[in-house]
Amino acid sequence: MTDFSEWFHNILEEAEIIDIRYPVKGMHVWQPQGFKIRKYTLDILKKILDETHEEVLFPLLVPEDELAKEAIHVKGFEEEVYWVTHGGLTKLNKKLALRPTSETAMYPMFALWVRSHSDLPMKFYQIVNTFRYETKHTRPLIRVREITTFKEAHTVHATREECEEQVQKAIKIYREFFDMLGIPYSISKRPQWDKFPGAEYTMAFDTILPDGKTLQIGTVHNLGQTFAKTFDITYETAEGEHEYVYQTCYGVSDRVIASIIGIHGDEKGLCLPPAVAPYQIVIIPIIFKKRAEEVLEFCQQMTDKLKKAGLRVYFDGRDIRAGKKYYEYEMRGVPLRMEIGPRDIENKNAIIFRRDKLEKETISIESDEFINNIKSILENISHDMKENAWNAFNKHIKDVQTIEEAASEIEDNKGIARFYWCGDEACGKELEEKVKVDILGIQDENAATEECINCKKPAKCKTLIAKTY
Amino acid sequence: MTDFSEWFHNILEEAEIIDIRYPVKGMHVWQPQGFKIRKYTLDILKKILDETHEEVLFPLLVPEDELAKEAIHVKGFEEEVYWVTHGGLTKLNKKLALRPTSETAMYPMFALWVRSHSDLPMKFYQIVNTFRYETKHTRPLIRVREITTFKEAHTVHATREECEEQVQKAIKIYREFFDMLGIPYSISKRPQWDKFPGAEYTMAFDTILPDGKTLQIGTVHNLGQTFAKTFDITYETAEGEHEYVYQTCYGVSDRVIASIIGIHGDEKGLCLPPAVAPYQIVIIPIIFKKRAEEVLEFCQQMTDKLKKAGLRVYFDGRDIRAGKKYYEYEMRGVPLRMEIGPRDIENKNAIIFRRDKLEKETISIESDEFINNIKSILENISHDMKENAWNAFNKHIKDVQTIEEAASEIEDNKGIARFYWCGDEACGKELEEKVKVDILGIQDENAATEECINCKKPAKCKTLIAKTY
Repeated sequence: MTDFSEWFHNILEEAEIIDIRYPVKGMHVWQPQGFKIRKYTLDILKKILDETHEEVLFPLLVPEDELAKEAIHVKGFEEEVYWVTHGGLTKLNKKLALRPTSETAMYPMFALWVRSHSDLPMKFYQIVNTFRYETKHTRPLIRVREITTFKEAHTVHATREECEEQVQKAIKIYREFFDMLGIPYSISKRPQWDKFPGAEYTMAFDTILPDGKTLQIGTVHNLGQTFAKTFDITYETAEGEHEYVYQTCYGVSDRVIASIIGIHGDEKGLCLPPAVAPYQIVIIPIIFKKRAEEVLEFCQQMTDKLKKAGLRVYFDGRDIRAGKKYYEYEMRGVPLRMEIGPRDIENKNAIIFRRDKLEKETISIESDEFINNIKSILENISHDMKENAWNAFNKHIKDVQTIEEAASEIEDNKGIARFYWCGDEACGKELEEKVKVDILGIQDENAATEECINCKKPAKCKTLIAKTY
Repeated sequence: MTDFSEWFHNILEEAEIIDIRYPVKGMHVWQPQGFKIRKYTLDILKKILDETHEEVLFPLLVPEDELAKEAIHVKGFEEEVYWVTHGGLTKLNKKLALRPTSETAMYPMFALWVRSHSDLPMKFYQIVNTFRYETKHTRPLIRVREITTFKEAHTVHATREECEEQVQKAIKIYREFFDMLGIPYSISKRPQWDKFPGAEYTMAFDTILPDGKTLQIGTVHNLGQTFAKTFDITYETAEGEHEYVYQTCYGVSDRVIASIIGIHGDEKGLCLPPAVAPYQIVIIPIIFKKRAEEVLEFCQQMTDKLKKAGLRVYFDGRDIRAGKKYYEYEMRGVPLRMEIGPRDIENKNAIIFRRDKLEKETISIESDEFINNIKSILENISHDMKENAWNAFNKHIKDVQTIEEAASEIEDNKGIARFYWCGDEACGKELEEKVKVDILGIQDENAATEECINCKKPAKCKTLIAKTY
């Protein structure tokens, strides 16, 4: 990919993922193909969350006074909030905000829901649209004004320890989720000046897109008691005292889909992990003048067999050149193509083509054992795509000793540089200025003994820097 | 139910379906139990629609000029549209409407998507939130300002005939959907003065709630070429000419859930059809001092067995009185309760309790055959609940000969009156005034030979009247 941005826009259009021609800047249409990828991606996430969380749905509109209650929080969002001011021809008495995120919609209700220690912990999530009046350049799925797929989880705990544990559990959940999609990530603690407005700290997942810029794909916030105090969320302890709760929240968005597309794609187009592919297998009949009907019938039987085994299969019996079909399904990223012609039927074989490796192989379809074979090939595809993505990712993270080395890692190797840092805000901002990057966050908080790459004072941690989306 | 409205509000609260304490009028919170009922209801609908439609997702916000393009349409909604006027601290150049429905969001895109006759028909649906600034008294799930569950389908056709056929197909889809939920309905063509703004005509599904008022639960609109002409949606025919398309749209909303709750519920609370019950079966251990562990373990095994068979089962092993559990699950509407004590284990029996009939029965659990028995009991529950609901519904629809009879059917029998009518708007409105009701719509359009109940001129059709929500 010589120009990722151009490639990304083209593939969204050609594979019919998103239509960006909707007449409001930063707001787009999910087309049927894109919607299916989104659906299967969310199915994976929901399945993991449903084990320990309950799904809920809160209103979109937040009254002005609730949004304004938590001062630090509202300050973080005030320039980005869309306001509803009129209902019909009537001016509203109280302005209503389109949720930029749902803390201020949910937490007044949590204050009513939480009564006793026996109610805790509470763990909820919802998948909704949220809105940000972005003034920066917008990009579909990456920087948008309507985030159409905002999965936000919110948890409530009795103690600081449980709250801290939940942060770790949330990280584990997102690891599992991204691993199933084969998306590599770094995890770091965002610097204090870049944390979620109102949080004690923010843990972030970043991945690297093909242009070398990092994309934040998930965040986990320890909210401490900030919102509990603002919204008066208390519980009665076993001893009958009233205490403020501790809270976390964590979210992922449309950017997950952007990562699936960007990280696995190649010059031929999409390359979808079997877990989220609308069709995991496409069957193409190889038709000559004779025996056409026999082949079509056989392909249909094969399709039915594979569908019965729980696979998502599409049989393309259209009367057009096979090569045209190959092109189309490679572009659309179907993980496995199966070609069947008259001689294959005789030999009880089929040719399969792996989209990820662009390799052909002949497999036997003599007994129904072949279905397990197909399933394990799909598993191999998932495994290899993940490994491949992690290998590329790891090549773009480098431990460096000097500012110059950091700059060259960012510029030439297009990745993330990691080094020792004092942890001081002024030094950090100077660093960001010097290398023209952002500090992603910190790792290894007890890194002592070394010195800061910039100010040479004793280091407190390692930090990651990169050009970011 | 002496007071349906009070019962309805109470059960929403007690069964934790919807929390109405959210601080914006007409906007409410789906709690976990309610969300699950909503989810299973939507799963049924999606499964039916997915056979012939593709799911998409359009932006919430509609630019003012697009909304205003179709004059009749916008006039129908102008008093109900919420307007976004500011992004952050900036006044927007162009106001954005919160969709009251999505014709004006979708159809400018359809104009881009439809090219040739070979693209047609197109059939899409989306499930989204929509907004109406209702000035009437709001009621959760029935008349709200944020419709959280708006399923809208939109289809595009080459000919008037196909478009007309699609109206019939949509009616068939909704019949199937409501039948699976056991919700009875009448189908009629809304009078011209009450059709969807911009439609040629509107077919409507109405059910009757326990207070005798009808609730519109689904509508199907034949849009003809109205929007095609406004948004310039044309296709190229096989002969190379450009023709305007024909369109339909059809929708259902949160009101489906209101109907499930209102129609099947009774003095004990919810009574849920197995298809949408969060738990279809609850297992209650009957514990005495001795052998408690044995019973708990047996119940757990039973739970696992039933779950493995694909049923939604909850095992309530809490150490509280069984009677308290019975009360709770009856109120929550769990279709089947299974009680297992030490003697049942010995006798290889279990007691089951049907929520719909409030009847107990002893069943054998000796062989695994009992699982099929349980499944057929659940099917019987669905069947009986539907039959029961239709019997009640049919008692409240009456063919009448005079205005007085109509009035008494509405007042005393709390239902729908049906009679011959001339079809004239002035006469219809006089009728509505006289009986203090609404005309729901018309049936049997070739009813001639009879005379109008009101003006005594020759009748054109039968019409249904009722008090409506």
